[in-house]
Amino acid sequence: MKFSPMTSFEGSRKVYLPGALHPDVRVPVREIALSDDKMPFLRVYDVTGPYTDAHALMDVGQGLPRLRTPWIVGRGDVTPGPQVSRPGVGCHARFPGVHAPLSAKPGCTPTQMAYARRGMVTPEMEFVALREGLDPDFVRLEVAHGRAIIPANINHPECEPMAIGRNFLTKINANIGNSALSSGIREELEKMLWAVRWGADTVMDLSTGKDIRTTREWIIRNSPVPVGTVPIYQALEKVGGKVGDLTWEAYRDTLIEQCEQGVDYFTVHAGVLQGFMPLVKKRLTGIVSRGGAILAKWMQIHAQENFLYTHFEELCEILKAYDAAFSLGDGLRPGSTHDANDEAQFAELKALGGLTRKAWAHDVQVMIEGPGHVPLNKIKENMDLQLEHCHGAPFYTLGPLVIDMGAGFDHVTSAIGAAVIGSLGTAMLCYVTPREHLALPDKDDVKEGIIVHKIAAHAADLAKGHPMAITLNDAMSKARYEFRWEDQYRLTLDPERSRRLREASLDAGQDPSARCCTMCGPDFCAMKITQEI
Amino acid sequence: MKFSPMTSFEGSRKVYLPGALHPDVRVPVREIALSDDKMPFLRVYDVTGPYTDAHALMDVGQGLPRLRTPWIVGRGDVTPGPQVSRPGVGCHARFPGVHAPLSAKPGCTPTQMAYARRGMVTPEMEFVALREGLDPDFVRLEVAHGRAIIPANINHPECEPMAIGRNFLTKINANIGNSALSSGIREELEKMLWAVRWGADTVMDLSTGKDIRTTREWIIRNSPVPVGTVPIYQALEKVGGKVGDLTWEAYRDTLIEQCEQGVDYFTVHAGVLQGFMPLVKKRLTGIVSRGGAILAKWMQIHAQENFLYTHFEELCEILKAYDAAFSLGDGLRPGSTHDANDEAQFAELKALGGLTRKAWAHDVQVMIEGPGHVPLNKIKENMDLQLEHCHGAPFYTLGPLVIDMGAGFDHVTSAIGAAVIGSLGTAMLCYVTPREHLALPDKDDVKEGIIVHKIAAHAADLAKGHPMAITLNDAMSKARYEFRWEDQYRLTLDPERSRRLREASLDAGQDPSARCCTMCGPDFCAMKITQEI
Repeated sequence: MKFSPMTSFEGSRKVYLPGALHPDVRVPVREIALSDDKMPFLRVYDVTGPYTDAHALMDVGQGLPRLRTPWIVGRGDVTPGPQVSRPGVGCHARFPGVHAPLSAKPGCTPTQMAYARRGMVTPEMEFVALREGLDPDFVRLEVAHGRAIIPANINHPECEPMAIGRNFLTKINANIGNSALSSGIREELEKMLWAVRWGADTVMDLSTGKDIRTTREWIIRNSPVPVGTVPIYQALEKVGGKVGDLTWEAYRDTLIEQCEQGVDYFTVHAGVLQGFMPLVKKRLTGIVSRGGAILAKWMQIHAQENFLYTHFEELCEILKAYDAAFSLGDGLRPGSTHDANDEAQFAELKALGGLTRKAWAHDVQVMIEGPGHVPLNKIKENMDLQLEHCHGAPFYTLGPLVIDMGAGFDHVTSAIGAAVIGSLGTAMLCYVTPREHLALPDKDDVKEGIIVHKIAAHAADLAKGHPMAITLNDAMSKARYEFRWEDQYRLTLDPERSRRLREASLDAGQDPSARCCTMCGPDFCAMKITQEI
Repeated sequence: MKFSPMTSFEGSRKVYLPGALHPDVRVPVREIALSDDKMPFLRVYDVTGPYTDAHALMDVGQGLPRLRTPWIVGRGDVTPGPQVSRPGVGCHARFPGVHAPLSAKPGCTPTQMAYARRGMVTPEMEFVALREGLDPDFVRLEVAHGRAIIPANINHPECEPMAIGRNFLTKINANIGNSALSSGIREELEKMLWAVRWGADTVMDLSTGKDIRTTREWIIRNSPVPVGTVPIYQALEKVGGKVGDLTWEAYRDTLIEQCEQGVDYFTVHAGVLQGFMPLVKKRLTGIVSRGGAILAKWMQIHAQENFLYTHFEELCEILKAYDAAFSLGDGLRPGSTHDANDEAQFAELKALGGLTRKAWAHDVQVMIEGPGHVPLNKIKENMDLQLEHCHGAPFYTLGPLVIDMGAGFDHVTSAIGAAVIGSLGTAMLCYVTPREHLALPDKDDVKEGIIVHKIAAHAADLAKGHPMAITLNDAMSKARYEFRWEDQYRLTLDPERSRRLREASLDAGQDPSARCCTMCGPDFCAMKITQEI
């Protein structure tokens, strides 16, 4: 498969920060050249991986360089795994590269949480520390205490380590993946690369359609960011889409298959319990989580407790063998502001807190998924209760969308809630695109969704006083005050767009470096007048 | 001039609510037809005026019907005014209709505040009450106490009365107007109609370029919503753009001219004082308000106090004769998050509070303009101090933008801050478009800016528990849960867009009324599965 290469942003180049503890740690950052004597460049966090390295040779059929393999193998606690994985059958686009799965040696726990608790600062932790401008031991402590996770499956050595935690930069996730109705492997791989190009810190492959496994293989092998999934989607496909036919065994085998492929975190709806079902009946919009609805139906058919809850210890055993992280799913998240913060939602949240402790007992990393649709006045309660019930595990929220009737613009209704909950301590924001509630997003939607959630994340970081957010913001304001238009374009989230929006409005022949824009014209520019004073 | 007629939204028709106190009050609302037995239609607030009345005959050369003339004249306190106004000279597009200005009879105060304080429930107040689902006497009390304004110049009888106050629906303003570099009368009139089409509650004509007066005449005569201006822009044009040549007399004559034309509210930067100038020097981005910068420069040139401050009593005398409202401008608003909530900003806010009391002593209505650029963690302080210093007068904020580096997407950075400050009690949100900081907005930008700020306003109303916001939201969620796609489209802010986004992704021949969308496909739709349980 051929793809147009990912181009770097204008005026930027990739540089690498060297590790001090681990000499083979090289952390990529984007260096933006500025025409400011006092600040000739600004280095910013960069998720784009080798794609934007002018010197890298890329071949999506072979996947990215496996930068973590020496670290993973070097720790001596993993071994070539029992190969549950099977190549995609009947799929015309099998991934041509070779991927030999690893798993933990018997008695070993190759998780970042286990290392952190043992006092080890891993290369992954140092990588994160350099990216975030933090002390490596601070990173270790945050991981040890469960306040942050480094989603980094030992079978995804291509992944550049990153952290999700409220004392780190706020991250965003982009969902990709096909449904039965649309989209193929190539489109999904393109969407992943596109999402990373615009700044997605992680991607979730939510495919429910054809070739789920093969699509995922292409994505993981080429993704420089952690990849998450919801394994119950594939498990359900395996049993022909019949919810009643789902079994623990089918789910378990799917989970192991995905662990072997290298999925870094899994949404697991283990908190959707039989006892909570009566609480859902009071709702306007019932259950709106796909996983939650599947499990609710399964419990009804079998009159049994959720098998993800009853087999949770076994789930922990599996995830710990690969250092896959739990993203404990909010299967009962509200699907309308009417249902926000109701008994069903918070009953599940409390259950997730109990499961968090169980996972931590296995040294398995955990984050908690959050709503959904929540009006502005009810957002804080969500964050407060999550911290309380889930013992400080990172919060990963979808939006929240602050109104229900924003269809067509739900990326904005989500960005509003996301900025607010981010400023209160949510660690990762799941993006929402303009097509939310309407259709699967196309590439333009993916970009739009990412950028507005990058804005939300940056707003949250600024509110929390993160030094990197303040530096970037002040650099932009200074460039604006000094009419350095080229620098302003470069410091925005989409330099090409900001340049086009301004320059398209200039008259032919007008100097684009003029000390004004068409908003106020030359005589009414406040900043120009101020500087004359 | 010919314009394409403004079409109504699909599935909607205009109906009128009759006044009980005043039989000639007819309040337009948009009635959205729904296929829901329990709620066959939903009536929503409608700012579009006669344009979306299928029975109205429109002629932009004559202007809108003057619905308020009988009320204004009937009160017996106005008289044909001394005609300061002069038709536009040398302008090729003079407004052909006739407009004979009125002003107060000697000793009379034809302002809504004066009437309210005397216990009169005017037709304007009843109009507002019906629009907002409130008791007319509640409206009167809010106006009497200065907590709300009804901007309704006696020379803008075409305007449908509306209220700006924190106990009313949150309003949004759209800025239009040309600069020296771009845009003509026709474009600005089209922008006004376009802004109203998408839901702007007021428009401000910020023109600084050619034909300021004639442009404004076309806009006011055809605007069903209040029109605001910043008179110092035209005053400066009159003295050839030389700040040093500005005089109180030139400003006063301009203000009277605009009062006679029918401008409903004026941004007056009377709080930019000599004593505050040293505070500005500490800033990263100085003064970013055009009016603020002009006055700062004027004070420096003349070494005198701001003439708007020293002549404030005379300003009150002028505005009270026409029931024009003050929008006390924040000339020292921060232009970067770095400068937010600084001494300069709050010193001015306090000064505006003092001026508010002076205006109220004249029965002149007042609102207060607010920032600007403010990070999320500093928004609440702005609202709290505005309420405290300005004695409960309505707050009218620009954004605030919660980050500085969002150029190209500043409509979103603004909508985030606007939703938050709206939920805390800001009465009107000034929109920001995607071209903010880059260029004058085009029609697409105007629409985008309005819609995301309508979302912010709705999010604020929902957070405040406004019954109309809750009803609309729940109607949407119920339609979503029941897969009533047509109803969903109709309930969104842009029905055509939401329909297109969904239906473009359907396969040819697929039934658009299907109980699923391409996000999840038919087998993974959570709401469908839930309903099967």
